[in-house]
Amino acid sequence: MTIEEQIKIIKKGVVDLLPEEELIKKLKKGKPLKIKLGADPSAPDLHLGHTVILRKLRQLQDLGHEITFLIGDFTGMIGDPSGKSDMRKPLSREEVLQNAETYKKQVFKILDAEKTIIRFNSEWLSPLNFADILRLTSSITVAQLLERDDFSKRYKEQRPISLVEFMYPMAQGYDSVALESDMETGGTDQKFNLLFGRSLQVAAGQEPQCILTMPIIEGTDGVQKMSKSLGNYIGITERPENMFGKIMSIPDFLIEKYFDLLTDEDIEPIKKRMASGENPRNLKVELGKIIVTIYHSSEDAEKAFDHFENLFKKGGVPEEMPELTITSATSIIDCLLEAGLESSKGAIRRLLTQNAISLDGEKITDESYLLDKNGVIRMGKLKFLRIIKK
Amino acid sequence: MTIEEQIKIIKKGVVDLLPEEELIKKLKKGKPLKIKLGADPSAPDLHLGHTVILRKLRQLQDLGHEITFLIGDFTGMIGDPSGKSDMRKPLSREEVLQNAETYKKQVFKILDAEKTIIRFNSEWLSPLNFADILRLTSSITVAQLLERDDFSKRYKEQRPISLVEFMYPMAQGYDSVALESDMETGGTDQKFNLLFGRSLQVAAGQEPQCILTMPIIEGTDGVQKMSKSLGNYIGITERPENMFGKIMSIPDFLIEKYFDLLTDEDIEPIKKRMASGENPRNLKVELGKIIVTIYHSSEDAEKAFDHFENLFKKGGVPEEMPELTITSATSIIDCLLEAGLESSKGAIRRLLTQNAISLDGEKITDESYLLDKNGVIRMGKLKFLRIIKK
Repeated sequence: MTIEEQIKIIKKGVVDLLPEEELIKKLKKGKPLKIKLGADPSAPDLHLGHTVILRKLRQLQDLGHEITFLIGDFTGMIGDPSGKSDMRKPLSREEVLQNAETYKKQVFKILDAEKTIIRFNSEWLSPLNFADILRLTSSITVAQLLERDDFSKRYKEQRPISLVEFMYPMAQGYDSVALESDMETGGTDQKFNLLFGRSLQVAAGQEPQCILTMPIIEGTDGVQKMSKSLGNYIGITERPENMFGKIMSIPDFLIEKYFDLLTDEDIEPIKKRMASGENPRNLKVELGKIIVTIYHSSEDAEKAFDHFENLFKKGGVPEEMPELTITSATSIIDCLLEAGLESSKGAIRRLLTQNAISLDGEKITDESYLLDKNGVIRMGKLKFLRIIKK
Repeated sequence: MTIEEQIKIIKKGVVDLLPEEELIKKLKKGKPLKIKLGADPSAPDLHLGHTVILRKLRQLQDLGHEITFLIGDFTGMIGDPSGKSDMRKPLSREEVLQNAETYKKQVFKILDAEKTIIRFNSEWLSPLNFADILRLTSSITVAQLLERDDFSKRYKEQRPISLVEFMYPMAQGYDSVALESDMETGGTDQKFNLLFGRSLQVAAGQEPQCILTMPIIEGTDGVQKMSKSLGNYIGITERPENMFGKIMSIPDFLIEKYFDLLTDEDIEPIKKRMASGENPRNLKVELGKIIVTIYHSSEDAEKAFDHFENLFKKGGVPEEMPELTITSATSIIDCLLEAGLESSKGAIRRLLTQNAISLDGEKITDESYLLDKNGVIRMGKLKFLRIIKK
């Protein structure tokens, strides 16, 4: 394959590939590139959002390059007191290793296990001492860090930036030095950090890495970035029916993007069919079947489709569903929370106000509603709970 | 002694004593305070500028408090790439220890050696690892550091601030944690760093230190801070005649400040004599004798005075002076530089333009003047060089 052909494949779907001329130079050497993806060890449940970059890495792997899946166990054990989110609970060594195992199982649904190197950044970050840190910090300027969008925004708004947050891009950059990375990959939100690694590599006398960023996909709500904490995600280990049902729930304007970033389909015919006014439902069914086939099987995809048809065409309820036994009149919010259908009371309250919860077909909107007899609760389109009163 | 009396002594000549109410609380506990002064290991030649704070520490020592003279050997071995000055050459372990010995010899001319604890900050800074650093940085905000005058100025002017410079106040603050310091002392230019240590102590669960700053004194030029690199200093190990002569050369408006900060004299009578129009020369002679007595002896003070009188009253030259042998016509600048009378060509050029250099009593102002015969060069009031042509 010529370098031009390689570049064409590498660039497909990519947002940034920088600097392209350096990548060409690296490819001309004819050696496999060392390509890095960093992963947060605290979130081992992969969803389709993560697969965008993993599918790109698989492509690169198929082109013969060397992929390192880097688990950020060092930073994970410290916890990130970033201003953006709550203080992250530091993970124990055991939790990190457990998460890593879960990660591998999931990542290897997409990456080639034989050809993927798994590393942990504690290997080189733990042994650093204060003198090493001083040497690293001496090649970095404060202004350079304050250019990062979220930092500059917070600085201007006089919201605090902890100095430890400045250590994270440095640690990530040092990972690239330790791995002698030729290219680092990530979502577009990682662009700054990926570029930042270049300066540390130069300071260490290395040729700087190229960077490749992939788009961030929106979750099933079509608005926010797909994320576990926002509840708008489709996990790659979810059961086929859930996966299929969630795909069916995405807004129509996401169909093309999902086809483009989550499947191998040629999207030109998809675009044409959308433009010709074909019912988007048909396209979603196809998308749902393709995605279930990738992560389960074509048989599962057909079953999931049948299940969906059964539920929504015929207005029925599934035969099997979770159950909750109550012994006295109990608040509907408490029941749904205890059964794990939602993770917070706030989320359940929102669903109540959105008319998204019913009991045996009757909408419930009263937050203080008490359940006191057998019945079936339906929450949104896909979640059911059988209440058993004893 | 009551606490009020102690506070009165402690506050004498001080610029900042913060927060005073916390100091009173600490004193009420009736235990000796742990008081810290940090010193740069790269500059072991103490001058009168350093004695301002050392004399204050001696007072505190005499009040029964515990003084730690902390040698910053850790930071000294790293080198400071601060934007303000040239990259400082990192010192070797051997140089640091050698400097420390020189320091002690000089410091104990003022501090009570028996009651002074000497520590090196490598003791606790060397063993810190990256995880420790992350914990320390997590209690510091970027905005807090950018409040430091020099940082904020440089940031506004878009001049670079290296991230390593942010590590220095942190390291200094951690020294206070390690020493469980009750009070840190320094010049007014250290106010930010001294206060900074408080937040690290609070983060470490300690009662924060109070801070005490002393004025910075101007050098013999009366304009700039006394400093070895500016050449306007009076070293405490200088020979009595030089010390005396330099005191005689200070501008009159510094007399009162020097008496106040460099001697134990009551300055009210000095003020009155200045105000009454007494010849400032009388006061400088007294000041010179007092200072030579402190660092040498009263006998040396009298001799230095006689030497000075001999030189200036009678317009004579000293019997002994350095010599330089030349074999061909040689530039005056090269001669003075080689003989070590000044440290740079620029400084010599300035003296030439200021009519401060003469050969056998004739002013020389020409930069390209060539020396070609025996003679005596006088530079300023006090420096002489005998040229021997062979």
